[in-house]
Amino acid sequence: MQLSDLGENGLIRLLTSKWRGRRGVRVGVGDDCAVLESGRKGEWLLYKTDAVVESVHFTPAENSVLVGRKALARAISDIAAMGGEPWAALVTIGVPKHTSVVRLRGIYRGLEKVARHYGVALVGGETTRSDRLFLSISLLGKTKGYEPVLRATGRAGDLLFVTGRLGGTISGKHLRFEPRVKEGQWLARNGLARAMMDLSDGLGADLPRLAKASKVGFRLELEAVPCNRGISVEEALQGGEDYELLFAVSPRDAKRLLRRWPFPLALTCIGALTKTRKDLHGGGGFDHFRQR
Amino acid sequence: MQLSDLGENGLIRLLTSKWRGRRGVRVGVGDDCAVLESGRKGEWLLYKTDAVVESVHFTPAENSVLVGRKALARAISDIAAMGGEPWAALVTIGVPKHTSVVRLRGIYRGLEKVARHYGVALVGGETTRSDRLFLSISLLGKTKGYEPVLRATGRAGDLLFVTGRLGGTISGKHLRFEPRVKEGQWLARNGLARAMMDLSDGLGADLPRLAKASKVGFRLELEAVPCNRGISVEEALQGGEDYELLFAVSPRDAKRLLRRWPFPLALTCIGALTKTRKDLHGGGGFDHFRQR
Repeated sequence: MQLSDLGENGLIRLLTSKWRGRRGVRVGVGDDCAVLESGRKGEWLLYKTDAVVESVHFTPAENSVLVGRKALARAISDIAAMGGEPWAALVTIGVPKHTSVVRLRGIYRGLEKVARHYGVALVGGETTRSDRLFLSISLLGKTKGYEPVLRATGRAGDLLFVTGRLGGTISGKHLRFEPRVKEGQWLARNGLARAMMDLSDGLGADLPRLAKASKVGFRLELEAVPCNRGISVEEALQGGEDYELLFAVSPRDAKRLLRRWPFPLALTCIGALTKTRKDLHGGGGFDHFRQR
Repeated sequence: MQLSDLGENGLIRLLTSKWRGRRGVRVGVGDDCAVLESGRKGEWLLYKTDAVVESVHFTPAENSVLVGRKALARAISDIAAMGGEPWAALVTIGVPKHTSVVRLRGIYRGLEKVARHYGVALVGGETTRSDRLFLSISLLGKTKGYEPVLRATGRAGDLLFVTGRLGGTISGKHLRFEPRVKEGQWLARNGLARAMMDLSDGLGADLPRLAKASKVGFRLELEAVPCNRGISVEEALQGGEDYELLFAVSPRDAKRLLRRWPFPLALTCIGALTKTRKDLHGGGGFDHFRQR
């Protein structure tokens, strides 16, 4: 069996099929973050790791401050996707021999900037030699006084919403996106999102994941998908790295959501979760292992 | 400035010099783990990340089960070095295109084996493409009802102890070592270790770090250093990857320690912390960045 036959999801399934829950673990593999008991009632720890590798997630020519920024912002987006508050991060950097110290400092300036902005404490990490520059970020977050929003808790009939506009991220937005931390926290705290995730691999790949985790189907109103300027719906579906929130809202709550949404960010209803499982025709999105 | 001029410690200092403590963070950069408030009195979270890279930390020819084992056991050793209980881990794996699925499964079997043995829940992670195989492990641990033991809290006059025997690890022990979890917990719970760390870069490199963190000097009785068979003291000092515990004990507690030590593992007094700072002559140890 080859890696390219499995695809990323198949590989993860194969490698983690024996991983069982344990005491203190509410959610393990398969959601945006792991969810752990904090020891305090109504408080949960969210735990996430995310890596960026040169020539896979960024090019050698890209601004080093933005590379550091992106590495941490991606993990923050996963905490946001559960409605959590990012808290403390560890940074592992793999460094090729002839990397310039100026470039490394730039990367760390980018990390520090985004950490300060989102209230993340940088508490440690590791440097190691590597052929190819990589950053692996581990991030802890919390929810205080409310439940984290999972992928698996959507129900048939829930309406689907996305924040912002999709597509066209490869033209630079993939380095400069803002994780939707405030928005995610507001949705979770107010009990408005029944299931949620962030869009990192494109709506066409991620929406089926949310539906599958919730054991339901979905209906997507293609003409409703909010696209960035000059981007077709098809491109928006197949793109990746939007880092917007996709979430399911009970029909009862949808009006309240639209009335009370306090953010300037666009909020769009794009479809619904359905009883019958039906896959999106032509859904693509980014897969690290499958050949395109 | 070149990486090789800085060395690993210099690079870490340069990159993290602006990282300040924040609310909920007791210890950040510079110890075996970060120490975070758990929200419960007398309970602390220990937070660590550790990476292994092919051709740096293991060879392509090495048994894949042992490679997975090592990757997680290294991080567990850091939790042990503070007297903590390992709890939950995230696994990031960077996978070159033509890696065999059999090899990946072997690595994960090794991870699962050591996780089961030490009571660690594997709760998630990530797969990404990479030129070179690497594993980056993030691990959370806890102390319950007692304080974690730091590096920085040794005092002049404290006696220095090591567990086990040092040196010769490159001949295979570096893949098969047992993190000293029980021993570290016992020392911390009983308040017997005033400062502690695990030996990952060799006693010659690690002892000066413990002394420096505690702002004291040290005296090492070379003839007392417990070496593995066929290993000279000099080799034992300069080796790496012992994963034994090095700790400082107040003179008042040393007798109690020796009397009550309940483990079959060797326990040896190898010197003391002193008022005057004095560097160990010829101390080496492994540094990822300095040219040897």
